[in-house]
Amino acid sequence: MKKEKMKQRIFDSAKQIVKREGMSQLNVRKIAKLSDCSLGSIYNAFDNFSELQLHINADILSDLFLALSKVIENGTLAKKPMREIFKDLGFAYIEFGQKNTMLWKSVFEHFPQKEIPKWYKKRAQEGIYAICAKIADFFDLPEKEVKHMVGFYWTSIHGMSGILLNKKMEMVAELFKEDYLELYVEYCLNGLFKRETVSVT
Amino acid sequence: MKKEKMKQRIFDSAKQIVKREGMSQLNVRKIAKLSDCSLGSIYNAFDNFSELQLHINADILSDLFLALSKVIENGTLAKKPMREIFKDLGFAYIEFGQKNTMLWKSVFEHFPQKEIPKWYKKRAQEGIYAICAKIADFFDLPEKEVKHMVGFYWTSIHGMSGILLNKKMEMVAELFKEDYLELYVEYCLNGLFKRETVSVT
Repeated sequence: MKKEKMKQRIFDSAKQIVKREGMSQLNVRKIAKLSDCSLGSIYNAFDNFSELQLHINADILSDLFLALSKVIENGTLAKKPMREIFKDLGFAYIEFGQKNTMLWKSVFEHFPQKEIPKWYKKRAQEGIYAICAKIADFFDLPEKEVKHMVGFYWTSIHGMSGILLNKKMEMVAELFKEDYLELYVEYCLNGLFKRETVSVT
Repeated sequence: MKKEKMKQRIFDSAKQIVKREGMSQLNVRKIAKLSDCSLGSIYNAFDNFSELQLHINADILSDLFLALSKVIENGTLAKKPMREIFKDLGFAYIEFGQKNTMLWKSVFEHFPQKEIPKWYKKRAQEGIYAICAKIADFFDLPEKEVKHMVGFYWTSIHGMSGILLNKKMEMVAELFKEDYLELYVEYCLNGLFKRETVSVT
């Protein structure tokens, strides 16, 4: 098997295990079994285990950014107002987590023990800043302001995803009744689009 | 050693390990070493390992609820307006996570494989509903409405905690410049206290 092809097969098998069982359950033995490669060829393909983990997370991030970029593209094509596009983005983010719970958890709940390498940071930054740039461009807003909006909105939508995906919500179901998801996104949007509102107090 | 005393010592040692290393690094051997108890006495004290894990998480939740309750008590004693009390609650929640990162992660990022026992659900509910009741009582609001507000606010503040504690923020530092924490809490409050604002669009 060619080297690149084998590397891809090892990578795909590893990602599949993470998707099914979570990053904490990934080990070289499982990858070897699923990819039908020897332990030696895995260590040949990736310098070390944490490098493989980082590449998996970078790949998941790319999938997420792709899903969000599509939402912006569709929204701008349909000439939706900004608030609607943010709303769609919020639902797309939550949906990505619901469909890929273990992958989502791998990216966002993996507590880095070591310094994160520059290439990974660069990838994460480029993905999110590309989204900011698209919004800034279409609505002709200063990029700085859009980054600020995206930072706030991402963080609050992220909270809903974390609560939902870790099944903490069902425990306190009384807090989240009747269309909670719709309502939650509305609240976040109300906080975000404060420019549209004036205080009456 | 008396049975209850030994159980407490095992529990305290286990919680200490979780605090230092995280729940995923907890195992019976480490507990035995730190508590100076035999493996047998650990299995005698707790029916099984996941029961011990749940008791640790319930204990962490109690600590968190205690910290939040104090904020409400101090706020109501000082006759602060509701928005100020929510603001203090938000900062207290984030601060608890920052001071007890591994404990926070253990409670909120532990993905339950099995059905969560009723006693645990009851504890989680009682803690959060007691907070709702205090707010409802002091501000003379319907409890249903307060539960709704607490649900939204908790979730969005939770998002900031998750991003912050998992060190995802430094990667996209440009999104979170200058007093981001203060600003973030303000945004969430703006979404929460929408009754105080009217739309001008």
